[in-house]
Order: sequence, then structure tokens, then C-alpha cells
Amino acid sequence: MKLVHGSKEGRRLLARLRRPLGEAELPEAVRQKIGRVFGAELDAQAVVDRILADVREGGDAAIRRYNKEIDGVQAGDDLSLKVSAKEIKDAYAQVDEKVVRALRFAADRIRTYHQKQLDHSLIGFDEGGLGQVVRPLRRVGMYVPGTTAAYPSSVLMTGIPARVAGVAEVYMATPAAADGSISPLKLVAADITGVDGIFRAGGAQAIAALAFGSETIPRVDKICGPGNIFVALAKKIVHGLVGIDGIFGPTETLVVADGDADPALCAADLLAQAEHDALASPILITTSDALAEAVMREIEQQLESLERREIAAAALEGQGLAIVAETLEEALALANEYAPEHLSLAVSDGERYLGQVANAGSVFVGGLSAEAVGDYTAGPSHVMPTGGSARFSSPLVVHDFLKVISVVSLDEAALAELGPAAVVIADAEGFTAHARAIERRLEGGR
Amino acid sequence: MKLVHGSKEGRRLLARLRRPLGEAELPEAVRQKIGRVFGAELDAQAVVDRILADVREGGDAAIRRYNKEIDGVQAGDDLSLKVSAKEIKDAYAQVDEKVVRALRFAADRIRTYHQKQLDHSLIGFDEGGLGQVVRPLRRVGMYVPGTTAAYPSSVLMTGIPARVAGVAEVYMATPAAADGSISPLKLVAADITGVDGIFRAGGAQAIAALAFGSETIPRVDKICGPGNIFVALAKKIVHGLVGIDGIFGPTETLVVADGDADPALCAADLLAQAEHDALASPILITTSDALAEAVMREIEQQLESLERREIAAAALEGQGLAIVAETLEEALALANEYAPEHLSLAVSDGERYLGQVANAGSVFVGGLSAEAVGDYTAGPSHVMPTGGSARFSSPLVVHDFLKVISVVSLDEAALAELGPAAVVIADAEGFTAHARAIERRLEGGR
Repeated sequence: MKLVHGSKEGRRLLARLRRPLGEAELPEAVRQKIGRVFGAELDAQAVVDRILADVREGGDAAIRRYNKEIDGVQAGDDLSLKVSAKEIKDAYAQVDEKVVRALRFAADRIRTYHQKQLDHSLIGFDEGGLGQVVRPLRRVGMYVPGTTAAYPSSVLMTGIPARVAGVAEVYMATPAAADGSISPLKLVAADITGVDGIFRAGGAQAIAALAFGSETIPRVDKICGPGNIFVALAKKIVHGLVGIDGIFGPTETLVVADGDADPALCAADLLAQAEHDALASPILITTSDALAEAVMREIEQQLESLERREIAAAALEGQGLAIVAETLEEALALANEYAPEHLSLAVSDGERYLGQVANAGSVFVGGLSAEAVGDYTAGPSHVMPTGGSARFSSPLVVHDFLKVISVVSLDEAALAELGPAAVVIADAEGFTAHARAIERRLEGGR
Repeated sequence: MKLVHGSKEGRRLLARLRRPLGEAELPEAVRQKIGRVFGAELDAQAVVDRILADVREGGDAAIRRYNKEIDGVQAGDDLSLKVSAKEIKDAYAQVDEKVVRALRFAADRIRTYHQKQLDHSLIGFDEGGLGQVVRPLRRVGMYVPGTTAAYPSSVLMTGIPARVAGVAEVYMATPAAADGSISPLKLVAADITGVDGIFRAGGAQAIAALAFGSETIPRVDKICGPGNIFVALAKKIVHGLVGIDGIFGPTETLVVADGDADPALCAADLLAQAEHDALASPILITTSDALAEAVMREIEQQLESLERREIAAAALEGQGLAIVAETLEEALALANEYAPEHLSLAVSDGERYLGQVANAGSVFVGGLSAEAVGDYTAGPSHVMPTGGSARFSSPLVVHDFLKVISVVSLDEAALAELGPAAVVIADAEGFTAHARAIERRLEGGR
């Protein structure tokens, strides 16, 4: 973890962490696999183009081929891409009852939060024949990454807001293990969420299947959820044909701390961020030199006992940053420029500083608000904007599964009020058929 | 305009109109220009990649070069990319006072509607330390196409919702004419909207400038507005680095009419759609064979007197379609599958059928609700989802310029309630640092 003083240098280093998606070179192991699968040295974009075209053309057979060649699934064609009801039922036996209870508890909290959010989301209105109706999307597909690791929380955090919004059909695609099985944790979480169908499909072939449809996998209206660079690029390419929730990169936590913050808790939060993956960004901005140094010492100590210490160390080495700023206002200005996914306000009067937060996915206010609670049980979705996209986008919200339809319903009085000016502008734009369509009505129609 | 009977054949022909963006071949004239400008036969994607890279690297100079080589701007480097205050002031003298009044009237209507929409949009809440805050975006850039034609209404329909949402800075980029001037209609509309800066930049170079920033043009948080295939592809590529409102293709109107509808008005609405451009889609679905034939006769007659009859005829020939369905329910089912940008319900009991509309940008209810009024003065934005994207997206709404920040602010009681289950899930996911960050707090911290 690098320690720097002053917001000028801090700003420069934060800006360097904002590498556009796909500009980093692919790891050697991935490049070798691409060579084996495609017989050529393709870049990520070319790989994704090939997979999308193949799945669009070949359907289930192409999905199976890529599941095998890329994800290493060895199960034969007799195993359906669709997970059976029995597999889901059997999954419960493989998950500790304590974990099932915790997932149900988390599901309840997430559902309750999003029901409140729905109450504060878009609503329909009609004033004098002008208004909007709000409708849920019909079919949503969520992608859940990971074969060795399983993140049941991401299933809940994506699927439950969709269900609360009233989406009629919610599907899940996720990579299978070599024997074709899906992690029981994911299956239990999907069952608790109330998913309508679970499909064995990983990476870009999963996104292609959800965008185009295949014999087994339904075409959806919107695809949600995070994934690796291939998933992100595939979502970007199919966007327009289907909706997407956003383009997600590695996760980030920025802790703003004053001199009274607890260094052990700041360190624990930064390590919780760092253990995600080697590309995660754990960042501290503080007004106290002493705190910065204490946090760095704590990180070294706490790191020793972590199971995922190699990953956390790599993230700290690669992206870890501690910046000492002059004032909390300066610290928050830097945080707003960086626009982190997670922002922890480890300051004495957190609520006061909340008003200065312009760009963040989620804010954790005060020393007790562990970001990790937000990852699981607080309620708001942990699917959030990364890479600085908090400048212009929101966490996954109920509204992502709703849409507006504008309604124009004019009577004669409204037409008489609105029509003449519309005719003038239509004529000015050279659209005489527009003008005529209005004039015919103003003249009394039939 | 092609007439077919039965929803099976209608469904097949409607599906054929849903060509994915960028799959159509570029017109010969465009291909020749690409050859001249780039010295190679590039496809649209390759052209856009080149322009984005060049503007990112070269800033203003690259924008000027493409303004000249692609858009034919002959003005020298002494003319700033930024439109001056004097140019805006002078524009008023060039626009008929009647048109200025009509634009002001439209602006008032659009503002009033979007203020109501804001009242029905996302709002903040805080329940027991969990909630959301809603913030406007800081900087928005709108792209306004057209050099020969000028669409001041699009300026109002994009900029005013942003202003109502509370966006601090709203910018506009638009192609200039050969002499470097911008259409006075657009300048007046921008001034009425209250735009903070107008820039001479067209096509993909404008999108690049708004996404990356240049010496003159500020980098924005979100880019809005329609454009040609190059603009659409450029928006798609920069999405993630900046927000975008959507990916827009040619415009579409679908009229659902019963036997009592006025064929002259149906024809007038379809022609108003057809005159937009040769790729526009004017579609009629009716339960009455007699009406279908009467509308087609009316179209032939009304077409004669239109200024833009060649364009309208090309659109009718290329995409025009009249489908005779068995029932209105069947007609609406077809309309929902097609998911039109504009849907006119030319039926006796329009309000009743509104409930059956699942997918549309905007619905025009009853014979008096001319779609053309919606284009100008009704109030809802006319920037709407095309190409079937109404399945998953909304017209441009105030919410497009707002974002949510989730807030988690826990006290000891909340932590005690939420923490233990979070620890269980974190352990199940193998994230021990997550578990430790919570346990440290449950144990009482410092």
C-alpha cells in the first residue's frame, strides 16, 4: 500500500487507477487458452465477437462447446443446460443449515429494503391526459460468475430487486463445474430468490444465450450482474438488443477517515475489499498522518491471519493507496472525483458529511457501518457502479426493472391549446406531414 | 405499403423489421466518403474506432479535422469550436418571431410536464439508517444531429428534462454548416433551454469529445440524444466511461385502429412518421379490412401534396406495413411484441386498451391525440426507445439525469441484528476478511 501526502499527488494516483475497461493486457494463461480454443491470438473483443456470433447461429450446441472448451465442463450432452428441480432440492442437503438460515435472513432484509425503494421509485401519473405509466420488465436474466468460488449473495442482490419490481420471469445463467454441477450455495440462493430457471452457461456464451435465446435458454429483455472482462464486453455488444444493468469492473472501497477513526476497523474494511481479487482497489484518504501510519501497520498485522492473504496482498500492492489530505472537505472532493463503488465515512460526524457526497455507489456512515454488512444483509443491492461510473449511474435499484411509457390523451380543448404551436415548429423543421396531421384534427377531422 | 392478413404473417413481417443496429450495409455514397477520408474500405465500427482514438489523442485538432473531412466544414481554425454569445444573440434575428414564440411555448410545456415527472420520480428515504439519496448528474452533453435540417424540438426535448432534474452543466454538440455556422433554429432552442455551452462538432468526433474532453469541449458524465449509425456506435463504445441515454435507430409509429377510426387521420399519422427518413417505419394494425384499404388509399392521395413525399414514399415502400388482425387483443399482442417507439390507439375506447400496452415508448390515446403533437408540445420527451428497446427502456425521463446513492448507517442495535448472518454468509463464500471486519465491530471495536 502506497502512502502519499497532499491532494495533488493523491489526485494523480487516483486518476491512474481509472484504467478503461479492456485496456489491460490479458494474463498469459488466458492468452494461451484463447490460442488453444480459437487457434489464433485473438484479443478479448475478438473472442467475444466470435462467441456471440457462434451462439447466435448455433444455439445450445455452441453454448455446450464453449462451456467445455473455455470453462472445462466435461459433462456429456445428456445433461441438460437447464438445472433440474431435483438438483435444486438436493442442493439444500449440501449446504449447512446455518447458512441457509442466513441466506433466508439476508433475502428478507433485501426484499424489505427494495419494497421501501419501490415505494420511493417512479410512479405513474395522469394530469389532464398527460402522464406516464410504469411497467415492470417481463423477462430478466442474471449472470452469476464463479465456478470454484460461489457468491450466493450476488444471486439475492440481483434477483430479489427484480422480483420486488414485479418482473414476471427471472432467469439465471452461471458456469458449471467440470462435472456439470452447479455450486449448491448458488442453487439454494436461486431457490430462495424464486428464480424461474437456472442454466449451465458461463462467460460470453451465457450473455449471448440470454440476448439471442437458444433452444433451452430464453431470450430476455435485460441482462444483469457482474462478470470478467469477457462478460463485460459481451454485455456491451448486446446492449441495445437487450437492456443491461451496467458494465462492471473490479470492486473498490474508499475509506475517508478523520484522526479519531479506529485504525483497526479501517484496516479491516480495506482488507475486506482487498481480498476480493488482485485487481480490487482499497483506498484510504485521511486528514491524519498518524492514522494513515497506524492503518498501514494494522493492515500488515491483520493480513497475516487471512485465508486469502495472497490475493489481498496483491490488491494492496497493485492498487492500495493511502492519501493524507489537509481537510475532510478536500478528502471528500478527491473521493467525489474518484467516484468509488463503496465509500466509508469513518468520521465523527458522518451524517454531516453525507451531504458532501456527490459520487458513490453506496455510503457507509460512521465506524459501525461495516461495508461487509452492506455486502450481505443491510438490504441495498451490492451490485454497484465501478470504474468511476458512479458519476452517472446508480446501484442496482428497483427502477432498473421498471420502465416508463409516456401517455398522451388529448381532448378537443387540449388539442386546441397544444396544436397550433406544434404546427408552427413542424413547419419550421420542414415536416409538413406532421403539421398536416395536426391541422386535420384542428379543422375538425371527419 | 404492404397489406397482409392475419397475425401469423404480420408477426413474421414485423420481426423482419427488427434488424440489429449496424447490420445494414452502408450506402454507396457513405462508403466512398470513408474511402476518401480514411484511405481504406472501413466498416462503420472501424471508422468509429479510428475517430474515437484520434480525438482522444488529438483533442480539438482531431475534431476540426473530422469536422472538415467528414462534415465538410470549411471554416478556418480561427473560428472557435465553441459558439459565441454573439452568434446566439444574432440567431434570434434570423428566426421568425412566431417560431420563437412556439418554441418558448413548447419549452414551457416540456418543463411543466417534467416537473410533474420529477414529483413522481425517485425520492430519497431513510428508514432506520438504511435508505437512498438521489442526486442530479453534474455534467450532461447532448448531441443534436443535422446540418441541412435543424430539429430545435430535439434540443428542448433533451435539454429541458436535464435542467429540471437539476443538472449543473448542460452542453450541446452539433455539426456546423460548411461556413462553420450553426442553424439559428438550434441556437435559439439551445438558448431557450438554457444550455451552458454549444460546440461545433458532428458525428463520432462529437461523441468522442464529450466522452474524453478536449481543450475546448468538456468531458461530461452522460451523453444524450439521437444520431446516425456512427453516433450510435460511438455512444455504445464510450458507454461505461460515460453514461448514455440509449442507442437509437430510425423512428417508428404503430397505429392500432378499429373499424371506426378515421382513415384520413390514420393516414396522416403514418405519413408524418414516413416523412422522417427513408428508414422510418409506418405500421398499421387494424381489425377492419375496409379501414386498411381506406387508409392505403388515403396515403396515396395525401402523399401527393407533401414536401417530403420522396422520403415518405421510400419509407412506405421499405418498411410500410398494414396488418389486418382478428381482434384488438391480437393487434395489441402484435404491437407489444414489436415494442414500437410510438403507439397510437385509434380505437373507440382507448383508455380501456391502454392497460394492455406492455411495450411502447409513448402511447397516443384516441383519434385526437396526434403523435405529431407529442413530437413538439405535449410535454413528454420525444427522445424514445426504438428498435424494440421499449421492451426494456423508457423515454428520456427526469430519472435519466438522476442517480441513487445507497446509504447504510448502522447503530449498535442494527449491527447486532444484521452482523451475525452477514458473518455466516461471508464465511460460506470464503471471504474471511469480510467476516472479521464485522466480528471486530460486534466484539466492541476499540
